[in-house]
Amino acid sequence: MTSAFRPGPLNLITDVLGLTVGHLTDEAVRSGATVLRTDGFWAAAVDVRGGGPGTRETEALAPENLVGKAHAIALAGGSVFGLAVADGVVAALSDQGQGLRLKPGSPAIPVVPAAVLHDLGNGGDKAWGLEPPYRRWGIAAIEAASRTFALGRVGAGRGAMAGYLPGGIGSASLDLGGGLMVGALVAANPIGTVYMPDGRSFWAWPFEIDGEFGGRRPGAHPPVVDPMPDASRLYELGRTQVGANTTLAVVACNADLTTAECKRLAMMAQDGIARAVRPAHTPFDGDTVFALASGAIALGEARAVALARLGSAAADCLARAIARAVYEASLG
Amino acid sequence: MTSAFRPGPLNLITDVLGLTVGHLTDEAVRSGATVLRTDGFWAAAVDVRGGGPGTRETEALAPENLVGKAHAIALAGGSVFGLAVADGVVAALSDQGQGLRLKPGSPAIPVVPAAVLHDLGNGGDKAWGLEPPYRRWGIAAIEAASRTFALGRVGAGRGAMAGYLPGGIGSASLDLGGGLMVGALVAANPIGTVYMPDGRSFWAWPFEIDGEFGGRRPGAHPPVVDPMPDASRLYELGRTQVGANTTLAVVACNADLTTAECKRLAMMAQDGIARAVRPAHTPFDGDTVFALASGAIALGEARAVALARLGSAAADCLARAIARAVYEASLG
Repeated sequence: MTSAFRPGPLNLITDVLGLTVGHLTDEAVRSGATVLRTDGFWAAAVDVRGGGPGTRETEALAPENLVGKAHAIALAGGSVFGLAVADGVVAALSDQGQGLRLKPGSPAIPVVPAAVLHDLGNGGDKAWGLEPPYRRWGIAAIEAASRTFALGRVGAGRGAMAGYLPGGIGSASLDLGGGLMVGALVAANPIGTVYMPDGRSFWAWPFEIDGEFGGRRPGAHPPVVDPMPDASRLYELGRTQVGANTTLAVVACNADLTTAECKRLAMMAQDGIARAVRPAHTPFDGDTVFALASGAIALGEARAVALARLGSAAADCLARAIARAVYEASLG
Repeated sequence: MTSAFRPGPLNLITDVLGLTVGHLTDEAVRSGATVLRTDGFWAAAVDVRGGGPGTRETEALAPENLVGKAHAIALAGGSVFGLAVADGVVAALSDQGQGLRLKPGSPAIPVVPAAVLHDLGNGGDKAWGLEPPYRRWGIAAIEAASRTFALGRVGAGRGAMAGYLPGGIGSASLDLGGGLMVGALVAANPIGTVYMPDGRSFWAWPFEIDGEFGGRRPGAHPPVVDPMPDASRLYELGRTQVGANTTLAVVACNADLTTAECKRLAMMAQDGIARAVRPAHTPFDGDTVFALASGAIALGEARAVALARLGSAAADCLARAIARAVYEASLG
């Protein structure tokens, strides 16, 4: 039986209305930044499952803490230097008047959680001394934000790897009917591999819609038993430091989720990483999933059932987005 | 290329030497208990990712807390009543002299973390009033503990379901060479389904070794896009309460892992649930993974790389164990 479920019109996270995405890609540095902007102050949460994360403002998203919402999410390469991307986004949004106003006349205070991946060793020009470029890139990425955006070797995914292959930016969406939309955005830089042992079929193949990542299907193949496959980078010297590899993701929907419900959405979406990458969530990955909810659609009764459905869809969208990231990077 | 990795001689978690497993199965109650016993006091941790867990002594396994070790892990049906299984195991082990001795002459204090699944509504005789049987069953399961044990509709898996199909007990192991052994034990009662949309291929099929769960391979199939497949039980009345569904697992290895390293092993093993069950980790699942390490093999240098490899193998073993649980239950 064929299902009626389809991607949204763009098959991008921006099918969740109110979101825009902007990239800054620097070919000389071989790095970049990607910013996901909301049109307001959306319920938000984060789930960190990698052993080497690089993050900012994640504690503000804990369900038991005060804020639990975000104006934008910033992703970047550059490891610890990349965290400055949020400085630029905060300044740019505040300059436009977006943010919390705690007192008349004081600056607007945007909440911009951020996460970074490691691309320092990829041969780009990283001799930035006291002036790393990521703060500037955050401002530029906000200026570039749009409902349509490029996939592959752009933005925060410019310097990313997936195993030994180029990684990059991916996205996907699913229309659940009744006005409900779910989407995912990813900067895929996992130490694990997105390919099955045949070296060509994506782990995520069962979830593919309309050949969005090449339509390859696995044939006969040997059992998948090597826990550290050659296509992963676990043995590669110089890349197995903590935090050297990371899948950074945002999942979003237009339901009226609370911060705690966004946390469950992010937790379930981690299963999309598990299904698209093997191994995942190692000590060397910084795997981090943010979740956002616009609140446009009221879930009404049986909220937890609806949340399970949204979480399952978010996991599928994230698995598809990861495969699309590597597929699009391979085309470039 | 065919890999040299093979299951251990039993293809059970007890291939990790020092472990024994005992079941108590009650056909009238349609429930039971399963106890995994160590031969000492093993490093242990737990990772809870379901939205409706039922657990005991999990805080004692937090890396920042004092204990971080366990003498046994107890699994049972019976929801909240089943937690009493650990009472029986604690009494039985202490009676045999196993446990911490804080003062000469005082009873030995066994540390027995436990987790339960929901099988209360399966038609068995649950009219136990003030005398639920689980404490007795814990004592009996310890008496039955052995290196070989049954799979399928036994022990804590007697009343389990997997989607709409019978769930049960599963196990699997992998010999990583160099003396390193990894294994998994599961009581599989997920709300999600273990089958792809063709209704016969296990999600875990890529990881199968030697037809251990029937050797079925997916053929052409429609895209997997329904986030709440018919074969899951999400819409079934009376079963979508919090905590009504759960995959309870233990992964074990014979390396010298710390409690914190066991936590990472458990976290990575959750990916095995993600790969074998869809959806997983919903608000209605109590998905809980314990991890144990005997310490027989010193990992030496590059510990984090070895840990990533063990975690990847644990995830694979758990995915295989889940498929075996449902496969063996279908044979019975």
